Amino acid sequence: MSKKNIVFVTGNVKKLEEVMQMFKNFYKDSVPFDLSNKNIDLPEHQGERDEICKMKAQAAFEIIKGPCIVEDTSLCFNAMGGLPGPYIKWFLKATGPIGLYRMLKGFEDKTAMAVCTVAYVNEQGEVNIFSGETNGTIIEPTAIETFGWDSCFRPDGYEITYAEMPKEEKNLISHRMKAMYKLKEFLDQNVIV
Amino acid sequence: MSKKNIVFVTGNVKKLEEVMQMFKNFYKDSVPFDLSNKNIDLPEHQGERDEICKMKAQAAFEIIKGPCIVEDTSLCFNAMGGLPGPYIKWFLKATGPIGLYRMLKGFEDKTAMAVCTVAYVNEQGEVNIFSGETNGTIIEPTAIETFGWDSCFRPDGYEITYAEMPKEEKNLISHRMKAMYKLKEFLDQNVIV
Repeated sequence: MSKKNIVFVTGNVKKLEEVMQMFKNFYKDSVPFDLSNKNIDLPEHQGERDEICKMKAQAAFEIIKGPCIVEDTSLCFNAMGGLPGPYIKWFLKATGPIGLYRMLKGFEDKTAMAVCTVAYVNEQGEVNIFSGETNGTIIEPTAIETFGWDSCFRPDGYEITYAEMPKEEKNLISHRMKAMYKLKEFLDQNVIV
Repeated sequence: MSKKNIVFVTGNVKKLEEVMQMFKNFYKDSVPFDLSNKNIDLPEHQGERDEICKMKAQAAFEIIKGPCIVEDTSLCFNAMGGLPGPYIKWFLKATGPIGLYRMLKGFEDKTAMAVCTVAYVNEQGEVNIFSGETNGTIIEPTAIETFGWDSCFRPDGYEITYAEMPKEEKNLISHRMKAMYKLKEFLDQNVIV
């Protein structure tokens, strides 16, 4: 029997690589499905994290017409009631990690929660949402730039930022890993037999 | 001949009142169309101001099936490359005007541009976009709270905030008035005969 194919809809090659590596880790290399990739520009709504991801997933399914995954990242500043949250990519693009650090200068609380929201859509178009969270602090960006806002996010319990960690270590504690692990457990129970 | 009816889609009663007053001022009370109101929850996308407004307008037309107006407000911090911009309502809701002021503490440039984007959709579903801009500075909010972020926005050339101005004065210089005036000129030329 051939493996089920699941399409990960993303234009971010680094994200795709990271997620493929995660599934290899979860399954000790023998991943029971194929993960392919499609880069489609999907509409993103304003609103609550889960709702944004759900609507994006439904839009993806309209095009893919088969099992697919979409993913969203939020960076939630506790001092700002969870914002920029799902809008973080626009802020990052406009100001870079240094701007994110500056945004919090006027607030005492520098803590933040990194959230990965993943939606899996099955053959029938049913959407399931999984999220993973990692708490940390926004600090002045380190010289090491990897991708996104990694250079200004220091996860709780560490003296270094996401950017300064070896990739393998980041993938053990990251918000994305936690969300993908929940997805893996769901797939194990509901999809893969 | 009866007047054409145009539906202003908004849930914000203060905005509706403000706009009705503006049209009365523009037309010296004899407004050549009826402006009615409908409160519909329209989807809002992420992206560029004009695009967000256009998509909202198209969604409104799908429901109204006739001439309608939608409106969006952005507050663009120059130090942040124009953000929060169209996401300002989420930030205002989460932090209040004081939070907007604090967000800029870490930046030298405290200037901001208030932008009103208006979309008019005609009987055929064609969308036209008009925008009005007012430059100013974000200051520590004044004790006087009116609505939105008026208490922390001081327009250029004034020593007081939007919130501290008499309504009539604000309506002479506001971003919303400028956008509505452009709409008025368009309606005069294209719609009202």
